[in-house]
Amino acid sequence: MVDVPVALLGYGTVGSAVDRLLRENADDIERATGHRLRVVRALVRDAGKERPQAAAPGVLTTDLAAIRDDPSIAVVAEVMGGLEPTGGYVLELLRAGKPVVSANKQLVAREGAELFRTASEAGVQLRFEASVCAAIPVIKVLREALVVSNVHRILGIVNGTTNFILTEMEGGASYDEALAEAQRLGYAEADPTEDVNGADAAAKMAILATMAFGSRVTIGEVAYDGIEGVSGEHVAAARDMEMVVRLIGQATLAEERLDVRVGPALVDRHHPLARVEGAFNAVMLQGDAIREITLEGPGAGGMETASAVVADMVSVIGTTGTGFLQNDACWRTLERLPPGEARSPYYLRLRVEDRAGVLAHVALRLAAHGVSIARLIQQQANGAATLHVVTHEAREGDLEAALEEIRELPESREEPSALPVISDRGVPGLGWA
Amino acid sequence: MVDVPVALLGYGTVGSAVDRLLRENADDIERATGHRLRVVRALVRDAGKERPQAAAPGVLTTDLAAIRDDPSIAVVAEVMGGLEPTGGYVLELLRAGKPVVSANKQLVAREGAELFRTASEAGVQLRFEASVCAAIPVIKVLREALVVSNVHRILGIVNGTTNFILTEMEGGASYDEALAEAQRLGYAEADPTEDVNGADAAAKMAILATMAFGSRVTIGEVAYDGIEGVSGEHVAAARDMEMVVRLIGQATLAEERLDVRVGPALVDRHHPLARVEGAFNAVMLQGDAIREITLEGPGAGGMETASAVVADMVSVIGTTGTGFLQNDACWRTLERLPPGEARSPYYLRLRVEDRAGVLAHVALRLAAHGVSIARLIQQQANGAATLHVVTHEAREGDLEAALEEIRELPESREEPSALPVISDRGVPGLGWA
Repeated sequence: MVDVPVALLGYGTVGSAVDRLLRENADDIERATGHRLRVVRALVRDAGKERPQAAAPGVLTTDLAAIRDDPSIAVVAEVMGGLEPTGGYVLELLRAGKPVVSANKQLVAREGAELFRTASEAGVQLRFEASVCAAIPVIKVLREALVVSNVHRILGIVNGTTNFILTEMEGGASYDEALAEAQRLGYAEADPTEDVNGADAAAKMAILATMAFGSRVTIGEVAYDGIEGVSGEHVAAARDMEMVVRLIGQATLAEERLDVRVGPALVDRHHPLARVEGAFNAVMLQGDAIREITLEGPGAGGMETASAVVADMVSVIGTTGTGFLQNDACWRTLERLPPGEARSPYYLRLRVEDRAGVLAHVALRLAAHGVSIARLIQQQANGAATLHVVTHEAREGDLEAALEEIRELPESREEPSALPVISDRGVPGLGWA
Repeated sequence: MVDVPVALLGYGTVGSAVDRLLRENADDIERATGHRLRVVRALVRDAGKERPQAAAPGVLTTDLAAIRDDPSIAVVAEVMGGLEPTGGYVLELLRAGKPVVSANKQLVAREGAELFRTASEAGVQLRFEASVCAAIPVIKVLREALVVSNVHRILGIVNGTTNFILTEMEGGASYDEALAEAQRLGYAEADPTEDVNGADAAAKMAILATMAFGSRVTIGEVAYDGIEGVSGEHVAAARDMEMVVRLIGQATLAEERLDVRVGPALVDRHHPLARVEGAFNAVMLQGDAIREITLEGPGAGGMETASAVVADMVSVIGTTGTGFLQNDACWRTLERLPPGEARSPYYLRLRVEDRAGVLAHVALRLAAHGVSIARLIQQQANGAATLHVVTHEAREGDLEAALEEIRELPESREEPSALPVISDRGVPGLGWA
């Protein structure tokens, strides 16, 4: 078989880019796989609509059956987005024995369990590289390169919009200015809610954690917080302590319990994630045999996404019939880490009255809950003092209890602010205090 | 087929680690591939020798035919190293129809043409992830994830020893102190020549360039320079200009001509390669559809190497019979960029007499050859001046001609020193001056 007919669900920006990449790189693909992939059908709602890039005559169809029931079609790429009717289409195709490649983060994160079960039952592959961080091949690396590495921790900058905004704020922009600039450049949507509140990153971390740990993680289980509360003062304090503020997704497996969360964090400037600038994404995978591997690149873009879709289609063709990756990666059910049990160093900002004894009061409350201070910077202004504290690793619940008491101190001037500090690495000897 | 017998050539540190990883992670591998891989034979020179980790009874053999002629063995991992007799063994196995996985950088770089031709003729795979940067899956990403991305430039820190030494020098150590520390920690061999002179990095860049550009690049074609000439003064000058010194491999494809080289360079501190510290490696791939993707991780280590070998074995089993990656990646013969034609910004250190008009003389010589100055720092000491110059992008030949004239100036006090500056990225708008 040299000529391999394939199909698309959707023919928008990504779909037409997939079609173009398959045509322009047919020789490269043939060299890699022995086959030439050719788009013969693309499902659209309205075949007569004007499109920026026209499909070849006869390719556009409004009938799913034209794809589902064509035995010559070897793989289908879902690039239409949305949950409905997309999810139903994908299930129908899988049941009909078609391998599917999806670029749909929401679909994979929300309906993964049913999709993967259906794919396993039908003995076909479901690939979804483009659903997380576009062209950065983190899913392929997790599933194929690190298959024996027991990845136990993932740290990720998986939202380019927020990383762009935080990088701009480092350069002196306010949050509002940085967001406006992101919108002007097309890095943020007119309604940026899902990006800036952490929900987009949470969906991606759910997918990554599910794949890395072999246990289903749903979006609802990912605690997330966005960057709306990050101020210029946070950014400046981070800089004073040789750190940067980043929106970090963390997925951790410790003692057979897993924890997945997204939120702003202070990242030590020597940490690989601290140097990720602008709209880029990066994912650090920590595992037994590999120590740590970090992948960085553009996390969005039509051509980048299409490139990942094509790579998945090529991988499906290159592994069909071998049994490779035809099982759902979820083979166990892991307990969740109970609330408050997570451990991390923290950065605290405390605004207190500037008078004798206040520091002692604060330090005593922290110590009473076993939270010890690693670094402290005190700043005076207008009769008030701001304490910037970095703690050693502490139990989240202990920190919260200490902050509850500090909040009640008569000298307390403002709600305390706490952010985790990222300074851990998978490499003994490469850490720092 | 669930039980899949496999074999090793060699049973040293890496070989025994491969055996252990296959046993301890048999469940993970079965979930990914549907098969359980089991080492049934390992070729050694002396089966009776004491080993840190004993093989199962009957596994060690001194007879290649026990592997070559056993039809049940599905893949062989070459982890014995060296060129002879290893190369002959691998050829014999390929001719007998056995897929081979190799961790042997020298073998792949020096005898790749014959090995790949033999593999193609026999219709079997030859994989070699572990030969470059250990567990960092750069070969897999290049060949499988970026198959339609037309990678046209690779920038790499592909030698951990030299990166460790340069990082230590940033911390204030002298070259000799840093080398001694690298040896103490096991990052450098007793004879560190191949690492510090750039030869090791050149072999890896030859492999990466061959795979990325589809044209055979031999070690002899890679111009390389090591870090022996890097002084504390270079490191300090780099820091003053917000850069760091790194040993950088560059492979460039421009206008159908390729250029591969290794040497110390000044890297802008915002560049992803500038953050790579200690014995880590990183490779940046720039391509059309992906802009740029950077992979970072440990570039050496027995367990890391074994992890990459196992991933290759798993990939072979997962793709056998499909035609995937069974062609030699080299499908064209590209011209080489003629000497002097490479273009780069440069850092120059010029030691001259501290008197009126010297700067003008230097600037005139540069301008006469079309080399324009982007930044200049002048330092005075003991009646001499040191000029630290960063140029805009210049033709290498033009720079050399200008330096030739500067060398002959009566005010010149010392041989001029020139290093390329790395500040380019695959991302428009993310660059810097």
